[in-house]
Amino acid sequence: MTEVPHGYESAPWQLLWRGLAVDQLQRTESTFALSNGHIGMRGTLEEAEPRGLPGTYLNGFYEEHPLPYAEAGYGYPEAGQTVVNVTDGKIIRLLVEDEPLDMRYGHATAHHRVLDFRSGTLRRETEWTSPTGRRVRVSSERLVSFTQRAVAAIRYEVEPLDDDVQLVAQSDLLANEPIEADTGDPRVAAALEAPLQSEYMKAEGYRAVLVHRTKRSGLRVAAAMDHELDTCDGLRTDIAVEEDLARLTVAVDVPKGRKLRLTKFLGYGWSAQRSIPALRAQVDAALAGALQTGWEGLLAEQREFLDHFWSTADVEIDGDPELQQALRFALFHVLQAGARGESRAIPGKGLTGPGYDGHAFWDSDSFVLQTLTYTLPDTARDALRWRHSTLDKAKARAHQLGLRGAAFPWRSINGDECSAYWPAGTAAFHVNADIADAVARYLAATHDRDFERQHGTELLVETARLWMSLGHHDPHGGFRIDGVTGPDEYSAVVDNNVYTNLMAQRNLQEAADSCERHPDLAAMLDVGTEEISAWREAARKMLVPYDELLEVHPQSERFTEHARWDFANTSSSDYPLLLHFPYFDLYRKQVVKQADLVLAMHLRGDAFSLEQKQRNFVYYEALTVRDSSLSAATQAVLAAECGHLDLAYDYLGEAALIDLHDLHHNVRNGLHMASLAGAWLALVAGFGGMRDHGGNLTFRPRLPSAVDRIAFRMCFLGSQLAVEIDQDKAGYRIVHGDPLDIRHYDTPVTVAEDTVTLPVPAFAPLPRPTQPPGREPARRKGGGHAPGPIWPGA
Amino acid sequence: MTEVPHGYESAPWQLLWRGLAVDQLQRTESTFALSNGHIGMRGTLEEAEPRGLPGTYLNGFYEEHPLPYAEAGYGYPEAGQTVVNVTDGKIIRLLVEDEPLDMRYGHATAHHRVLDFRSGTLRRETEWTSPTGRRVRVSSERLVSFTQRAVAAIRYEVEPLDDDVQLVAQSDLLANEPIEADTGDPRVAAALEAPLQSEYMKAEGYRAVLVHRTKRSGLRVAAAMDHELDTCDGLRTDIAVEEDLARLTVAVDVPKGRKLRLTKFLGYGWSAQRSIPALRAQVDAALAGALQTGWEGLLAEQREFLDHFWSTADVEIDGDPELQQALRFALFHVLQAGARGESRAIPGKGLTGPGYDGHAFWDSDSFVLQTLTYTLPDTARDALRWRHSTLDKAKARAHQLGLRGAAFPWRSINGDECSAYWPAGTAAFHVNADIADAVARYLAATHDRDFERQHGTELLVETARLWMSLGHHDPHGGFRIDGVTGPDEYSAVVDNNVYTNLMAQRNLQEAADSCERHPDLAAMLDVGTEEISAWREAARKMLVPYDELLEVHPQSERFTEHARWDFANTSSSDYPLLLHFPYFDLYRKQVVKQADLVLAMHLRGDAFSLEQKQRNFVYYEALTVRDSSLSAATQAVLAAECGHLDLAYDYLGEAALIDLHDLHHNVRNGLHMASLAGAWLALVAGFGGMRDHGGNLTFRPRLPSAVDRIAFRMCFLGSQLAVEIDQDKAGYRIVHGDPLDIRHYDTPVTVAEDTVTLPVPAFAPLPRPTQPPGREPARRKGGGHAPGPIWPGA
Repeated sequence: MTEVPHGYESAPWQLLWRGLAVDQLQRTESTFALSNGHIGMRGTLEEAEPRGLPGTYLNGFYEEHPLPYAEAGYGYPEAGQTVVNVTDGKIIRLLVEDEPLDMRYGHATAHHRVLDFRSGTLRRETEWTSPTGRRVRVSSERLVSFTQRAVAAIRYEVEPLDDDVQLVAQSDLLANEPIEADTGDPRVAAALEAPLQSEYMKAEGYRAVLVHRTKRSGLRVAAAMDHELDTCDGLRTDIAVEEDLARLTVAVDVPKGRKLRLTKFLGYGWSAQRSIPALRAQVDAALAGALQTGWEGLLAEQREFLDHFWSTADVEIDGDPELQQALRFALFHVLQAGARGESRAIPGKGLTGPGYDGHAFWDSDSFVLQTLTYTLPDTARDALRWRHSTLDKAKARAHQLGLRGAAFPWRSINGDECSAYWPAGTAAFHVNADIADAVARYLAATHDRDFERQHGTELLVETARLWMSLGHHDPHGGFRIDGVTGPDEYSAVVDNNVYTNLMAQRNLQEAADSCERHPDLAAMLDVGTEEISAWREAARKMLVPYDELLEVHPQSERFTEHARWDFANTSSSDYPLLLHFPYFDLYRKQVVKQADLVLAMHLRGDAFSLEQKQRNFVYYEALTVRDSSLSAATQAVLAAECGHLDLAYDYLGEAALIDLHDLHHNVRNGLHMASLAGAWLALVAGFGGMRDHGGNLTFRPRLPSAVDRIAFRMCFLGSQLAVEIDQDKAGYRIVHGDPLDIRHYDTPVTVAEDTVTLPVPAFAPLPRPTQPPGREPARRKGGGHAPGPIWPGA
Repeated sequence: MTEVPHGYESAPWQLLWRGLAVDQLQRTESTFALSNGHIGMRGTLEEAEPRGLPGTYLNGFYEEHPLPYAEAGYGYPEAGQTVVNVTDGKIIRLLVEDEPLDMRYGHATAHHRVLDFRSGTLRRETEWTSPTGRRVRVSSERLVSFTQRAVAAIRYEVEPLDDDVQLVAQSDLLANEPIEADTGDPRVAAALEAPLQSEYMKAEGYRAVLVHRTKRSGLRVAAAMDHELDTCDGLRTDIAVEEDLARLTVAVDVPKGRKLRLTKFLGYGWSAQRSIPALRAQVDAALAGALQTGWEGLLAEQREFLDHFWSTADVEIDGDPELQQALRFALFHVLQAGARGESRAIPGKGLTGPGYDGHAFWDSDSFVLQTLTYTLPDTARDALRWRHSTLDKAKARAHQLGLRGAAFPWRSINGDECSAYWPAGTAAFHVNADIADAVARYLAATHDRDFERQHGTELLVETARLWMSLGHHDPHGGFRIDGVTGPDEYSAVVDNNVYTNLMAQRNLQEAADSCERHPDLAAMLDVGTEEISAWREAARKMLVPYDELLEVHPQSERFTEHARWDFANTSSSDYPLLLHFPYFDLYRKQVVKQADLVLAMHLRGDAFSLEQKQRNFVYYEALTVRDSSLSAATQAVLAAECGHLDLAYDYLGEAALIDLHDLHHNVRNGLHMASLAGAWLALVAGFGGMRDHGGNLTFRPRLPSAVDRIAFRMCFLGSQLAVEIDQDKAGYRIVHGDPLDIRHYDTPVTVAEDTVTLPVPAFAPLPRPTQPPGREPARRKGGGHAPGPIWPGA
């Protein structure tokens, strides 16, 4: 067959891939995934094959499996959780005369897919010649509805291009789709091989429903489909159902100039408690709603939802179309991950793939919720409600660990700890401060007192209690937190990690503040004045180590006395280091996987002077290898603050393009939500200099030399704010809502509907910090395509 | 049936247990185990049932199984090794008329077992009445030969006590004996369920042989038996063989006053390389030798071997018969573990049970080899030859870890690392210094230049190289060793562990000395003067942290700033702590599982002043919970040196009685060889004050108030030395060999055949240090039975 060109094409509001490229299918299934935060569907072709990795996910739906240990230990989690590929409703197979449409055979003269950030749909158009020479055009468009969270829909059209052809379409619901397990453990593979047991099936007319239940976790899922058909006369349809398959078959002769058009409506639901009839009723009702709205209605609702989102969240960067596309791609996927999660977690990969087993980590709280707090704050609230809903489990875990308060899991779907390697799991207690920080940020940005009273204060109190039992006052007068792991996963089980201690300090202060705002709540939570005083005292005495000799903050105590990693003798093929060196060696040396002290300087920027930030930034730049996708965005923010604008621009590019350039070689298993959210932060907190310490919204905008103008929207205290920045000035205006008091550099300003324009101070460029050899970010030249992946061999 | 009394009875040269006590069988099978270091046989009853855990082991013979990880990591060992219960030749079943002799049925009027430390045999005598009233006396005696390492033998006699009876004896070789797996991992259990595959079988006359091979590790084992029969006329015998069973059946009518006497000779051999015919020939030859020597001959050789051993190694303690028995029991088992290992490891449990999977650890090098170096030095040499034979594996492991030199495994049978939890495995690099220390000690005590040239220097050099790549010179001028784990398993992955650093210092010095003694060898090992200088420089600059405020050595950097464990709120049922608290909590607090800094003060006593030792000892006593069997002996040694003689006596009792009192509740899986070896050290290095820093043999004897006299033998530089100590004087004489230069306190003395008697200086008693509440050792009152297990509930 003739090769059509392939690769992403530049477009401001779309992701477009032309050509098939079977070997690239799996990664584009991730980037083309649709989701509303409740249902996720990977961007597979309707005809199901060729395929990379099919995947339909429901947020919170998982199967359990035993966690094996060669050497067991007290408190090790016994059960793992893994996101399950549920009943696949995306499949519409097609026979053209008697040839199955399979793009590996025959001849595709045109083929492209488009993810549209404003319509919220995935479109596909293919012109295909069958091996026996029949030509057809296949067009499809699909959506996972932001407005009807249980609903997805697909419009599928086939048009003969030459003669009359017989078309047979088979629209499926397929459960227990065989997929390759990504695990070496035969017990885990067995648990996931065919996780669903049939409980109920029914098919009638154009509608079918399948109900299944997982074998170990006991969760029930219902999937239903209904169809509308629009085609020629002589149509013959048949519907059939068996345990793992429901199928509507449509056969029709279509003359040239006419079409077969099939509209498929899907309804999904799951529950740990509800009965088969209840769940069946739920998906039937979802379908009824979808049919009543109709395809065009669903499209219109989708567009309206997105218009509103972009009016609050859009970013613009002039003269760099690739980055412009990447930034909107990033925001669109962050929205998809969080939009309708509704008291479920936001997994590290959203619902775009099975990576990390579908688990949620601290980076959702620290990165994704930051971006959502300022763009669609209700979604941040809902994700924090999920944390609150798991508080009993977190308290039980703390109790098991001999601690007070709540110890939230390092990785989980249902709130139970699933991390089987405690030095980089349980020991990373900072997740608790990250949750508290997300609560405090949300409260500061919304003044949502209902949330505070129902969820926020309790989250702050129980995490504060954890720190009190984890730390202790030492004889020298400091409050120490020993033997924990900070964000950097190339160090573990250290004393007085600066990030952890500073975040714990904020946690303690915010808990005290919240309790003093709500004495009645405090009383209900058994918080007395003595406990509040103890929190404030621990916060005041919190130990923050400092290396007087080097005049930098050690990431954790003694860090700067450790041997430096031998970067000179580390080749580019040795990265990521964790695949080529043992943990013990990484842990004992000065080498940083991801921003840790540098992240502390962002989130707790109020605890450092600018001079300290500048010295620290240069010191850690030389040690940070960015083997984690969580790093570049934070480095961008601090590079900008410290005056390294061009470097910040490079890091912004890396954060935003992480998945489109597949910089970590694993986008096939899903997108990196925290990095995508971080791209927004890199722009807004980096070049916009946005901070909100203590609830005071401040901007210190500065642009890199290659960028003439950026603009972004955000919301704060219910108002939509538009910010526009060029090389020498910045303009602020309220798009919607009340005026806002902000600071531009050190100047207080009240912003209302009229644009306030203020000068950007001039600054002297600083020497560019150095990174470990071979780990420099790709240089971003404004206005064109990036020079490609940062790592050789990518 | 009538209960006969049961329990160990006091006897100076025997372990004696009267009565059956089915629930105690498994632990007494360990204490009554016979071994020569090559073959091990647990003390099961001949008739095979009732039983605790049958076990016949061949040193070095193991099966492999995959090591599971829920989260894998670079450099994690993939295969585990587990000692295998090989073909069981101990079984002789008996039918009395048609009733099988099973002591759970019928009626035993007398039953006892005796392990005899001078004859080196296990004797058993039973008087049994069958359910139908037939009375017989069964006597057996068995041995695993110290002089013919492939041979074991059993003499089995049955005597009717009333009438004529028909006796049928069945003497078996039984492979793949069903035993319960002690693992939660189904794959490991599967690997061990029936590990042996039949390869060859043959039976003729009274002789049979079975050859098997393990399924994964591919090791071949041959077991053969032959018999001599002495009984009445009318004997009928039959021999039969199948894949996993060979059986000689003997049927005879025996009148009162006559006996059935069956002598069973067993030959064992295994190999990773040799063929079936070769291995069969080997065990046939072993049997030929055994038959030629005969039962009485084997007994005589055994006695002669042991007479020689006791003349070099015996210890006496007056007025404490229980401890006297325990000390000889301990020495006897240490001898059994090491006697004929011959370039195989000495496992942590010897060959007495499947505990620790049959692995060898550092404690063999640090405890068992210390005792053997001064009592049977050739066995220490042979165990170090095993380490040398695995040098290629240790070098490959170091290379895999990015290090130079050799990294010996934390736990292993064949030399490959089997530890699946790296913070308490791979990170415990001190094992390498412990091996070097054992080499240096052996060389100092023997001047064995052949061993040094063939094995010793290379072991010292490759371990020294490891330290050079593990440590680094820091900017403040110290040589740091970061991120390693010391002996105390309640701390891990710490910086500058004092024990590790001091032992590494000695390792570097000894390597330099040995290379300078043998410049030709140094050249062969590519050691130049520059490398030697670098070793000496690192040793000189070795960082030894010290807490100036508390005036004690922190076990590792910052240890003394950590929170103290909350002992007051830890109940006695919370011990051992590792079963009730997570590692993360143990690691981050001041709580010590086992002597660490205190062990450094023994093995590197030359690096501390007496005042430092005294302060440190008191500090660590208050933190040390002795959840490890490796602790009490070392605490005894340092308690004695620091002047706490009565406390030392208590700890000596704990070390010596650890298995007889089952203080750790796991003697059912085998004995604690290091603690048993430590009992000798507690006496000799504790009350005898024996040290040999720099090859200078020194004694600083002092007795606790309750003990009037101790005496011990040891060998040094080929001479047998006898030491006799009472409250105010000590006598030294050479029993055999050249005169020796020693020191008594600070007085140099040359000891020859005539006893030199020197005064023991008076000393003022010190206040008794305190231990964590509830963790005080049982008080040992001289002259009686100990008050029982130290832990409640034991």
